[in-house]
Amino acid sequence: MSTYGTLFRVSTFGESHCPSIGAIIDGCPPGLELSAADIQVQMNRRRPGQSDLTTPRNEKDAVLLQSGIEHGVTLGTPIALIVRNEDQRPHDYSETDLYPRPSHADYTYLEKYGVKASSGGGRSSARETAAKRSSWIFIIVQTARVAAGAIAEKYLKLAHGIEIVAFVSGVGKVHIPVTAASVDEETDDAPEPLSEEFRTLLKNISRDEVDKHTTRCPHPDTAERMKQRILRAKEASDSIGGTVTCVIRNLPAGLGEPVFDKFEAKLAHAMLSIPATKGFEIGSGFRGAEVPGSKHNDPFVRRADGSLGTQTNWSGGVQGGITNREDVYFRVGFKPPATISQAQATAQYDGTPGTLAARGRHDPCVVPRAVPIVEAMASIVVMDLLLIQKSRQAAASLLPPITTLPVTMVMPPRPA
Amino acid sequence: MSTYGTLFRVSTFGESHCPSIGAIIDGCPPGLELSAADIQVQMNRRRPGQSDLTTPRNEKDAVLLQSGIEHGVTLGTPIALIVRNEDQRPHDYSETDLYPRPSHADYTYLEKYGVKASSGGGRSSARETAAKRSSWIFIIVQTARVAAGAIAEKYLKLAHGIEIVAFVSGVGKVHIPVTAASVDEETDDAPEPLSEEFRTLLKNISRDEVDKHTTRCPHPDTAERMKQRILRAKEASDSIGGTVTCVIRNLPAGLGEPVFDKFEAKLAHAMLSIPATKGFEIGSGFRGAEVPGSKHNDPFVRRADGSLGTQTNWSGGVQGGITNREDVYFRVGFKPPATISQAQATAQYDGTPGTLAARGRHDPCVVPRAVPIVEAMASIVVMDLLLIQKSRQAAASLLPPITTLPVTMVMPPRPA
Amino acid sequence: MSTYGTLFRVSTFGESHCPSIGAIIDGCPPGLELSAADIQVQMNRRRPGQSDLTTPRNEKDAVLLQSGIEHGVTLGTPIALIVRNEDQRPHDYSETDLYPRPSHADYTYLEKYGVKASSGGGRSSARETAAKRSSWIFIIVQTARVAAGAIAEKYLKLAHGIEIVAFVSGVGKVHIPVTAASVDEETDDAPEPLSEEFRTLLKNISRDEVDKHTTRCPHPDTAERMKQRILRAKEASDSIGGTVTCVIRNLPAGLGEPVFDKFEAKLAHAMLSIPATKGFEIGSGFRGAEVPGSKHNDPFVRRADGSLGTQTNWSGGVQGGITNREDVYFRVGFKPPATISQAQATAQYDGTPGTLAARGRHDPCVVPRAVPIVEAMASIVVMDLLLIQKSRQAAASLLPPITTLPVTMVMPPRPA
Amino acid sequence: MSTYGTLFRVSTFGESHCPSIGAIIDGCPPGLELSAADIQVQMNRRRPGQSDLTTPRNEKDAVLLQSGIEHGVTLGTPIALIVRNEDQRPHDYSETDLYPRPSHADYTYLEKYGVKASSGGGRSSARETAAKRSSWIFIIVQTARVAAGAIAEKYLKLAHGIEIVAFVSGVGKVHIPVTAASVDEETDDAPEPLSEEFRTLLKNISRDEVDKHTTRCPHPDTAERMKQRILRAKEASDSIGGTVTCVIRNLPAGLGEPVFDKFEAKLAHAMLSIPATKGFEIGSGFRGAEVPGSKHNDPFVRRADGSLGTQTNWSGGVQGGITNREDVYFRVGFKPPATISQAQATAQYDGTPGTLAARGRHDPCVVPRAVPIVEAMASIVVMDLLLIQKSRQAAASLLPPITTLPVTMVMPPRPA
Repeated sequence: MSTYGTLFRVSTFGESHCPSIGAIIDGCPPGLELSAADIQVQMNRRRPGQSDLTTPRNEKDAVLLQSGIEHGVTLGTPIALIVRNEDQRPHDYSETDLYPRPSHADYTYLEKYGVKASSGGGRSSARETAAKRSSWIFIIVQTARVAAGAIAEKYLKLAHGIEIVAFVSGVGKVHIPVTAASVDEETDDAPEPLSEEFRTLLKNISRDEVDKHTTRCPHPDTAERMKQRILRAKEASDSIGGTVTCVIRNLPAGLGEPVFDKFEAKLAHAMLSIPATKGFEIGSGFRGAEVPGSKHNDPFVRRADGSLGTQTNWSGGVQGGITNREDVYFRVGFKPPATISQAQATAQYDGTPGTLAARGRHDPCVVPRAVPIVEAMASIVVMDLLLIQKSRQAAASLLPPITTLPVTMVMPPRPA
Repeated sequence: MSTYGTLFRVSTFGESHCPSIGAIIDGCPPGLELSAADIQVQMNRRRPGQSDLTTPRNEKDAVLLQSGIEHGVTLGTPIALIVRNEDQRPHDYSETDLYPRPSHADYTYLEKYGVKASSGGGRSSARETAAKRSSWIFIIVQTARVAAGAIAEKYLKLAHGIEIVAFVSGVGKVHIPVTAASVDEETDDAPEPLSEEFRTLLKNISRDEVDKHTTRCPHPDTAERMKQRILRAKEASDSIGGTVTCVIRNLPAGLGEPVFDKFEAKLAHAMLSIPATKGFEIGSGFRGAEVPGSKHNDPFVRRADGSLGTQTNWSGGVQGGITNREDVYFRVGFKPPATISQAQATAQYDGTPGTLAARGRHDPCVVPRAVPIVEAMASIVVMDLLLIQKSRQAAASLLPPITTLPVTMVMPPRPA
Repeated sequence: MSTYGTLFRVSTFGESHCPSIGAIIDGCPPGLELSAADIQVQMNRRRPGQSDLTTPRNEKDAVLLQSGIEHGVTLGTPIALIVRNEDQRPHDYSETDLYPRPSHADYTYLEKYGVKASSGGGRSSARETAAKRSSWIFIIVQTARVAAGAIAEKYLKLAHGIEIVAFVSGVGKVHIPVTAASVDEETDDAPEPLSEEFRTLLKNISRDEVDKHTTRCPHPDTAERMKQRILRAKEASDSIGGTVTCVIRNLPAGLGEPVFDKFEAKLAHAMLSIPATKGFEIGSGFRGAEVPGSKHNDPFVRRADGSLGTQTNWSGGVQGGITNREDVYFRVGFKPPATISQAQATAQYDGTPGTLAARGRHDPCVVPRAVPIVEAMASIVVMDLLLIQKSRQAAASLLPPITTLPVTMVMPPRPA
Repeated sequence: MSTYGTLFRVSTFGESHCPSIGAIIDGCPPGLELSAADIQVQMNRRRPGQSDLTTPRNEKDAVLLQSGIEHGVTLGTPIALIVRNEDQRPHDYSETDLYPRPSHADYTYLEKYGVKASSGGGRSSARETAAKRSSWIFIIVQTARVAAGAIAEKYLKLAHGIEIVAFVSGVGKVHIPVTAASVDEETDDAPEPLSEEFRTLLKNISRDEVDKHTTRCPHPDTAERMKQRILRAKEASDSIGGTVTCVIRNLPAGLGEPVFDKFEAKLAHAMLSIPATKGFEIGSGFRGAEVPGSKHNDPFVRRADGSLGTQTNWSGGVQGGITNREDVYFRVGFKPPATISQAQATAQYDGTPGTLAARGRHDPCVVPRAVPIVEAMASIVVMDLLLIQKSRQAAASLLPPITTLPVTMVMPPRPA
C-alpha cells in the first residue's frame, strides 16, 4: 500500500504517463501558515540544475495545492497536491520493450501485478525515450515525499526549532573524511567516530551552505573531487553511486516507540524506501560494531541548562530506540543509477539473450538530488513520532500526581 | 505501540520484573501443524551456552502456548504465548540507582514516560543485580520476536520451501573475508561484491553448520579469531560489537509494496528494531555506493526452469523494492553491549558527576545470540509481505482475462 | 484521519471552496477493466434529478481519473480521481456567519480544529449562499465513497457475481410494509421478520427497478405516499428524514474477522460514517431483540447445490460476525437535513441569542440520493474483508493436509 | 485480526478449551494508579449472580495482571492480563457434534478457517457440556473488552470526569417508556425524542443505581415486568433478547475524526462487535428519521459557563461526527441467545436433516450481563479518539498565533 504514517500520514499516486501525480498529506496540525512556495522550495532542490533555487524552471513541475488550506492557513483537514503531467502519451513501441531493464523494476513489477504500465517500471521508474523526461520521472517518485516533508519540517521548525540538514558525504570512493584515526585492532583504541572537523560541520551546516556546491557536498576539497568523479562517469556513459549524511538538531527527548517502532527503525524504514538505497547506519553505524563498549558508551554530563546530555555521541541521538536530545545523525547509501548510456548484454522477458541498446543520455549521479528527499523522509518520521509522543504527554499531564512511588521510579528534580 | 505487521501481526508485553512476558501472534494461517517445540528450538538458540540445543536448561525459559492451537494444529485464531518470570521481586535500592546507565535506555525511558520501571530501562533492558539474570532479560526483549519468527518460518518452509539462515560475519575488526578485491578507484574495476567462496557459503549454509561454532561464524579461521577477540574483551572487563549476515533462499518474486513498504525498507525497519543495532545494508550495501552502474547492474539470464534470473546479484534479491526470486542477503551491525564489568565516569540523574560502579559479570559479545533474532525478524517480514501479495494474486486470478492490451503490458509467455 | 480500509483503502480530500476534491483508492486488484464511465454512473445517481442517468448534467461533476489505470485496465497501483470545483471563491461575509448552524458541524469543527474553513463545516458540509451549490457539496462529501464503491463493486460483480442493491424503505413515517404481523407479547408468536412480499423484493430487486421511482422506493404504493410526504416538507420550507435498506446477494461464506472486525461491525462503522445517519440494524435488527430464541434461530437446511443454507434468515447473512452465504440485508436511518428554508431561533458563536435567517431553498429529503452512497460503502466493506479472507485461504491452501485431526475439527465432506 | 484501536489498542486471544485467555492493552497513559481490583469490579458485573459484586466467586475468574504496572502505577508500556482456564480438556465426542448449532458461529468458523476448534464456535462461542461453563465462555469472549474498558474509564474519570453508564432498556417487548408522545404523521408534531422522566434518568443514573436491580433496568416498574418476561422464557426452555441504553457524560467537544471515523461510526463499530448485537442507534436514532428538520434541529444556547450548548439533544451529543459537549446517548439491540434448552429441527454439517437435542440449561437472557460490556466498548472508543485529539491540540498549541485570518475563520471570544 502506498501510505506511510500513523498520525501524520502520506498517501501517494501516479505513474509515468498518467494525467497527474500527487499525494494526500493527512494529519497536519491546524493553524500552520503554509503556501505552495513552502513546498516548491524543496521541490526545486530535487531538480537538475539546482543552482536555480527560487523559480520553477517550467510550469510542469509546479505543485498545485488542492485542499486543506484556506487563506494560507492549514485547516487540519487533508492537504492534497498534484503536479500535472505534460507528457501523458505512452511512448511508441520499440524493440527495447522486449527487455526488462537490468536492475530496474520492470521485471519485478510484472511479477507482482501480472500487468505492467506500458512505460515499464510503473511507480518506481520509467523507460525513457528522451533524457528530457528525467526530471518528470524523478518528480513522480518523489513529489509525495518532498511535499509531505516540506509541510512537516515547517511545523517542526516553527513549533520546536528542529533543523534537518542533509548533504552528500560520498560519491563513488570519494568521501568526506569523517574521522582521523581508525580503531586499533590490537589496543582497542577507538577515537571518536567523528573527527572534530566533521562534528563541527554537523553542528553548524545549513542548507544554504550545502547548496553552494553543485555536488551538495559542503566540504570544498571533497566536493571538487566528487565533481571530477561524476564527470568521469558521464564521459564513460556510465553512472556512479554515493552516500548522503543527514543531521537532525534540536529534537526533543522521548521520541520513538519501544520494541518495533524505535526511532532508528522508523528512520531506516523511511530511508530504505527511497529508490536506489542499499544501506542505512545511525551514529557510529557499522564502525560501532568494531569498537569495545568502554569506548562506545556515551557518559552522561550535566548541560548548561541543567538537563542531562552525553559527552560523546556514538549513539547518534538515540538510546533504546528513543531520542535523548543529542543530535541525530545517519548515513544512507545509494547504488549507481541503473539507467546508463551504454548498451548492455542481458535477456528479453522470454529469456532470449540479446543486447539492450542505450537510448539518450542520463543523469550519471543522483545523490545531489537525493539530498532534499532524505531530509523530507526524516521530517516525516520525526513528525509522526512527535505527534504520537505529544498525545502520551498531554494525556499523562492531566493525571493526579503519584506521591507514593519508590525513589527509583520518580523523575529526579532538575537543577535550575 | 508494541505491535508489528499488517496481516501477520505480533504484539508483545513484559518488563524485567513482571509476572510473565509474552506475545500474541495474529494471522497465522489455519491448518499448520505447530507445537511448543517448534518455537523452543529457536528460543534455546538465543541462550548463552547454545551448544545445548535440545532441552531448555531450566523451567523459566519454557514457552507456554496459551491459545490458537488445538491437537497440534493452528486454528487461524491468535496464538498467545507466555514465559513465566522467576524473579519478579524488584531489586533492592542501591546507590547505582542514582545513575542512568550510559548508552542504556534508563534515561530515555524516563524522558518518554515520566515514570520508569524500578529496574530502569523497562522494556528495553534492565539494571542487573547479578549476571544470572542476563538470560531472562534477553528473553524479555526477544521472546516475541523469536516465537513469532519460528511460527512464520515453519509456514514459509512448508508452503514455499523458503530457507532463512543467519550467521556471525564480524566481531570487532574480525570479519569473514567477503570479496577478494576492492573497487579500483582509478579504473572503476569492480569485482563481484561477494567472493566465490562467500557466494558458495550463502548458497549452502545451514543452521546446523552455523551452530557447530560457538561464535556462530561458519568460516572456521575467522571463527577462531573471533573467539580470541571475545575472550580479550572478557578479560578486559569490556564488551565488543559485531555483525550478522543473513540469507533468504527460495523466496517467490513479487514481495514488497511500492513506494513506502519496499521489501528492503521493511527489512531495515525490522532489523533496526532489534536492540543494539546501528546499521543495515542489503546486497552490495554501502560498497555498492562506490561502484559504477555498468558494473553494478545485474544482467538477466534465462534460468534452467525457463524463468528469468540475474547473472550477478548486487541487488541482493530486490529490484524496485520487490523481490526478483534471487537470494536476498543483508548485513546488520550491532554495537558492543552497554553493560560492562568496569566502573564508568558519568553523571547521576540530577547531573551530579560521579562513578557508576560495575556489578557482576556480563556477556562481552551478543552477536552469536542475535543470530536467531535476525532470522526471526526476517521471517516475520517475509510472512507479512507474502500474505499481502497472496491476497492480490488470489483476487486478480478470478478476473476475466484481458485480451486487448498492448504487447508492452502483457506478461510474455514463459518457455516450458 | 480520512482513510478507510486495510487492503482496499480509500483516502479522501476536499472542502467546499478548494480547487478540487478527490480520493486515492489503493489496493484495487490489477487486471480489472475500468473506465471513468463505471464510476460516473453511480456518481450521477447521487445527483438531484436522478432520472437523467446517462450524461453528467454539467462538466463540474465529471470524475477525472489521474492514475492507476492504463489502456482501460487497472495496474494494481493507487487509483486517484479528482472532481474540479467551479466555485472556489469563498462567499462574502454576511451576518449569518455569526451563527453556527443548528445540527450542523460548524460548531464542532471549530472546537476540533481551532480554525475553520470560511465556509463553515469544512469537510462535513458548507454554508450555502445559493441552492445551486447543493450538488457540489454533496459531491464533496461523497465522491470518495461513491467512486471507491464503484470500483469495488465492479470487481465484486466480475469475480464473484456479488450484487449490492439499496433502496428507500422509509420517508418520515411512511414505510414499506416489511412484515404482516407483529410479535405477540403474550404468546411469543413471532412471524418471519420479513413478509413474503418483502423477501421477494430483496431477492429480486435491481438498481434499474429502483431508479424507476424518483423516490428510489421500489414499492409503488409506498413510493407515491413518500412523494407526497416530501412535497409536504418542501411546501412547509422544512425537511424530512428517512431510511435506506440494502441487500447484498451472492456473498461468499467466511467474510468478517472475529472479535472486533465482525462483518456487521464493519458495515455499521461504514454506514454511520455517512453524513446524517443515526441508526443501523442488520437482519432482524431491533425487532430481533423482542423475539424468543426458539423463533429467532435459523435452522440449517441442505441447499440444492449440496451446501448448507438456513431456512429463515433472521441473522441477516451473518453468524458470529462471519458471512454464511445467505443474503445480507440491513437498514440505515437518516435524520432530516439540518439546512432548512426557514428562520431558526438559536445563538451566535459568542452565545448571543438571535435568529438565523433562511437563505435560498434546500433539498427537503436526501434519502433518494443516499441510495448509491449506501451501496458504495457496502461495496468497500465487502471488498476489504474479501481481500483479507482471500489471503488466509490462499495461504492455507498451500499447507500439507492434516490427517490426524479428531472428527470434530475436520470439514465434513459435502454431498455432490 | 483481533486488535482494536489506533493509540489505545486492545489485542485479544483465547478459545474455550485453551490454557488461558487474555489481552494486551497498549497505549495506556503512564502514571495512572491501577490495580487488578479496578478491572475485577467490572469483570464481576458481567457474571451471573451480579448482586455479589465485591468478591470473585471463584479463582477461575480472577484477572491476573502480567505487565505494564509497577507499584500500582502504569508504566506506559503494554498491560497484559490473563484469566486461567480451569477446564482445558476438550469435551467428549457426542452426536451433537454432527450439527452446526443454529444461529451460532460453528458453521461460519468452519467456512472461514477450514478447521475448527473441537468446541465448535471457537472464539465466538462454545458448545457446552454443562451450564457451569457459561460463565467461563462469557469471560472468553468478553474479558479483553471489559478489562480494557475498565482501564480506559479509570483514566477518563480521573483526567476528565467522564462518566459512562449503561442499563437495560428493553427485554423482549418490555421497554422503559422513553417518550410520552409519538410523532404525529399529519401535523409533524414531534415532541422531544426523550420524555422528561427519561432525560432525568440519563442525566443522573449511576452504576450503583443500575445494580440495585437484578435486571439492571433502573426503572422499577419496567424492571419487574422484565423479570417476569425472563422467567417466562426460562420456563419455556427458551431465551429472549433485549436492548441496552448507554449515556456518556462530561465528554469534551472535538472528539471524532471527519469522514470515516466519525464518533458515532466508531461507536457503532464497537457495539456491533459485541456478540449477539443486531442494531445501534444514537440520539434520535431511527425515530429521528421520521421527524421534520425544523423539529429535529438542536438550537444553540449559551450555557451557564459561557460555552455554547444545545437546547434539545436530538443529535445525541454529536454533530458532523464530532462531539459537541452534550451527553452522548445510544441504544444497542441484542438478539436472544441462540443456545436454548429445547430440541431444534435442523441439519447436520453434511446436510442430513435431524434434531439437535438440548443439553443442560442455559441463561435465558444476556442483556443484564451485557451492560458492563457496552460500557467497556464505549470507554475504549472514547479513549482512542481522545488520545488522537489530544495530539492534534497539543501540536496546534505550539504554533505562533495567526492574526491575519478573516473573521469567519477565527474562534470567537468566549464570554467569561
